[in-house]
Amino acid sequence: MSEKPKKSEAVEEPVVMQKLVSLAKRRGLIFQSSEIYGGLRSAYDYGPLGVELKRNIKNLWWRTMVHEREDVVGIDASIIMHPRVWEASGHVAGFTDPLVDCRACQNRFRADKAPTAEDGKIRCPNCGSGNLSDVRKFNLMFKTHLGPVEDDSAVVFLRPETAQAMFVNFLNVQQSYRLKPPFGIAQQGKSFRNEITVEHFTFRSCEFEQMEMEYFVPPPQYSDEGKGPDYWYDYWRKLRLNWYTETLGIRAEKLRLREHDAAELAHYAKGCADVEYDYPWGWGELEGIASRSDFDLTQHQKFSGKKLTYFDPDKKAHYLPWVIEPAAGADRTALAVLIDAYDEEPPPPDAKGDNVEPRVVLRLDPRVAPIKVAVLPLVKKEGMPERAREIIRAFFKNGVNAFYDEKDAVGRRYRRQDEVGTPFCITVDGQTAQDQTVTLRYRDDMQQDRIKIADALETVTKKVMAGGRDVRKPG
Amino acid sequence: MSEKPKKSEAVEEPVVMQKLVSLAKRRGLIFQSSEIYGGLRSAYDYGPLGVELKRNIKNLWWRTMVHEREDVVGIDASIIMHPRVWEASGHVAGFTDPLVDCRACQNRFRADKAPTAEDGKIRCPNCGSGNLSDVRKFNLMFKTHLGPVEDDSAVVFLRPETAQAMFVNFLNVQQSYRLKPPFGIAQQGKSFRNEITVEHFTFRSCEFEQMEMEYFVPPPQYSDEGKGPDYWYDYWRKLRLNWYTETLGIRAEKLRLREHDAAELAHYAKGCADVEYDYPWGWGELEGIASRSDFDLTQHQKFSGKKLTYFDPDKKAHYLPWVIEPAAGADRTALAVLIDAYDEEPPPPDAKGDNVEPRVVLRLDPRVAPIKVAVLPLVKKEGMPERAREIIRAFFKNGVNAFYDEKDAVGRRYRRQDEVGTPFCITVDGQTAQDQTVTLRYRDDMQQDRIKIADALETVTKKVMAGGRDVRKPG
Repeated sequence: MSEKPKKSEAVEEPVVMQKLVSLAKRRGLIFQSSEIYGGLRSAYDYGPLGVELKRNIKNLWWRTMVHEREDVVGIDASIIMHPRVWEASGHVAGFTDPLVDCRACQNRFRADKAPTAEDGKIRCPNCGSGNLSDVRKFNLMFKTHLGPVEDDSAVVFLRPETAQAMFVNFLNVQQSYRLKPPFGIAQQGKSFRNEITVEHFTFRSCEFEQMEMEYFVPPPQYSDEGKGPDYWYDYWRKLRLNWYTETLGIRAEKLRLREHDAAELAHYAKGCADVEYDYPWGWGELEGIASRSDFDLTQHQKFSGKKLTYFDPDKKAHYLPWVIEPAAGADRTALAVLIDAYDEEPPPPDAKGDNVEPRVVLRLDPRVAPIKVAVLPLVKKEGMPERAREIIRAFFKNGVNAFYDEKDAVGRRYRRQDEVGTPFCITVDGQTAQDQTVTLRYRDDMQQDRIKIADALETVTKKVMAGGRDVRKPG
Repeated sequence: MSEKPKKSEAVEEPVVMQKLVSLAKRRGLIFQSSEIYGGLRSAYDYGPLGVELKRNIKNLWWRTMVHEREDVVGIDASIIMHPRVWEASGHVAGFTDPLVDCRACQNRFRADKAPTAEDGKIRCPNCGSGNLSDVRKFNLMFKTHLGPVEDDSAVVFLRPETAQAMFVNFLNVQQSYRLKPPFGIAQQGKSFRNEITVEHFTFRSCEFEQMEMEYFVPPPQYSDEGKGPDYWYDYWRKLRLNWYTETLGIRAEKLRLREHDAAELAHYAKGCADVEYDYPWGWGELEGIASRSDFDLTQHQKFSGKKLTYFDPDKKAHYLPWVIEPAAGADRTALAVLIDAYDEEPPPPDAKGDNVEPRVVLRLDPRVAPIKVAVLPLVKKEGMPERAREIIRAFFKNGVNAFYDEKDAVGRRYRRQDEVGTPFCITVDGQTAQDQTVTLRYRDDMQQDRIKIADALETVTKKVMAGGRDVRKPG
């Protein structure tokens, strides 16, 4: 086998974002929200291919974090929770940015990000004026009113994180499922933060999707030997870092685990590390793994007045478990997957026809690719469309998302599939009716195999289940 | 074969809800949201089993409505959209309830649901006073502010339906995917309505999950013969009604299609029909199928100033397509599935041990069941747990969600699986190590088969893929 396909040198990092945003719109991966109305600040809609990519990422997370683990169960909680939840969690008091109003130009801005004059005082980043209001705390939670009266007693918030639902439901879940620490509760869903600074396409938005898990372990004094909170913190850091490479196919050299230093840690935290990806603008967080002690359960016990302790029948002790929290972002993971997969190949020296343009190819792992296989009738006649559709039905029976395309010359259809990362193309031609063979084309090396339909089905299905970023003709 | 299992006569309809709500909490299907804080009005959280049920329903909808159709693609849009979207859609002006304030007791209530005195004037439902404010329109959209300034220019809404995102993205999706009417755009996601009247457990909540599809067809004058909007309206009504029986396993006799009469129709609507389920409190909507003409695209074209017409190359015409909209509710579908499946069997006359209690069984179709198969070691020794876990891994390789349980006597474990609708149990015992056989137990008739592990894997996997509410030993 030749060496693995690498990104071509031609793809300069700074231009990748520009090319990717354009590809995302052109091919239906990601659109600006409400675009016909001029767009909404940093809100995005996933198009036909983007929604499949994100679904694949979320489903892979659910499979590895919930289904395939005896010790983790899922929940799906409401976005609007009781407002006391956010008092207990500390979000009402502390989830704030420091904001200042400019008296000269009425601009409102973050004091901690503003430029300073020579005397050290901050200036308006818009007009430069020093005539500013006092710094006030601006809460990042979106506020609305539940019920017909818009007064303070009706205020509720859009959750700024999914995690609190796991703490609030801790006992309900533990008891109904008869769980014994260590065990985890996982959730996926939208969260909302009224960020003043939004940036880098879908990396930081006011509305975003989380994949969070709270792993409840016995506190140090009740832990089995060698398996205290520190053990589990270490366990989850390693497991989660590896997930991005092993399950999503992101290149290992573009990932790192960054331990927070003491100054970054919350007062109750025993440790926190970020899984980071080397984005075109620098290292950015994909996921945080935090060792949170019993802070959250203690707070909810205090604010709710309900006893939230677990009775351990072996240790004969009532205790509040400690928590390790791996909290990932689905949108920034999808973005990292796309950036990591984006590649361009210069045309070969003898290029002609469809090949004179550079080949854009998303080197997606087949497990995350929106379309797993495109089935293409060479022409729209002689029964080829019907035979192609039969093959598509066979793929669906295998649980493989197949796509039918009959528009334009087959060379152009291949290129269209390459740029959205489809690992395989199968072409049905005149010979297919005679000997039940098709052409199977591999995305990364563009090599083709003339094989039996049944073999093509098996090859594609196996690779889609097993995954692996490298999609080339074997041998 | 004996006759199909039916609900026992013992299950009186009015008590089903009470029993189901209790089962839902006890077994981790559905909890009240923020329960430790006294709960939040009509908000619910799906527990470990509930989230799997709802995921199954949503995934089955996505498979039949998106993946397996060449003519439908998906999107996933943001919940907060540009506020002009809701002016164009008519929600800002018209999505209201008539509310009245009582000057005597400060109660606020819906005028259209209030009791009237003999003179026909409405009275406060709380204190009976006739000293009331004028009727004012109360908008059902939740309102919040995007950005740091809480003034009118920053007002945004939580979407009251997912449908508008399909209209707003119509051209982006059509162009990026090169689609030609008739084609559909589908979406699943949360919507929010500040309902004054919430009722019937998860049937009507302020926060709920929709599964909607907008099917764009050529307007009557450009339709192919016999395939105008009326044809497609009829097509989708039939297809969607059947989906509940054929894919979810709900009993056909508990479903109906109810055509709206003229008074119920919006002015632009050409027809609307509801798929209804016979809930314990009466017929209630699961899904509405509406023929909406070109109303929505016309509105968005007008309000955005952007041309939204499609150019039909065959007809050589620019037109706004008409729309057929099947709009389903994921939460009320999950509730109907649970109610429809709930059953109790009286104990047999010779009952003893675990069998003296009535047997509670959820007769769920295996496709929607949260757990497909429970694998149970007879005892926690002699290698049985290890062998059981091997079988579980084999199921996961087949894509089948399997569950391990070793707590309590095997009879009690069977009962626990029955009441959450698990179609199959496999028991590993001392003989398993010798001859590679296990006991396969069928949920509905409790019959058991002693068969090879490989045969058990095949039988269960096949039934889970094929579906069918009836889970009994064949023969």
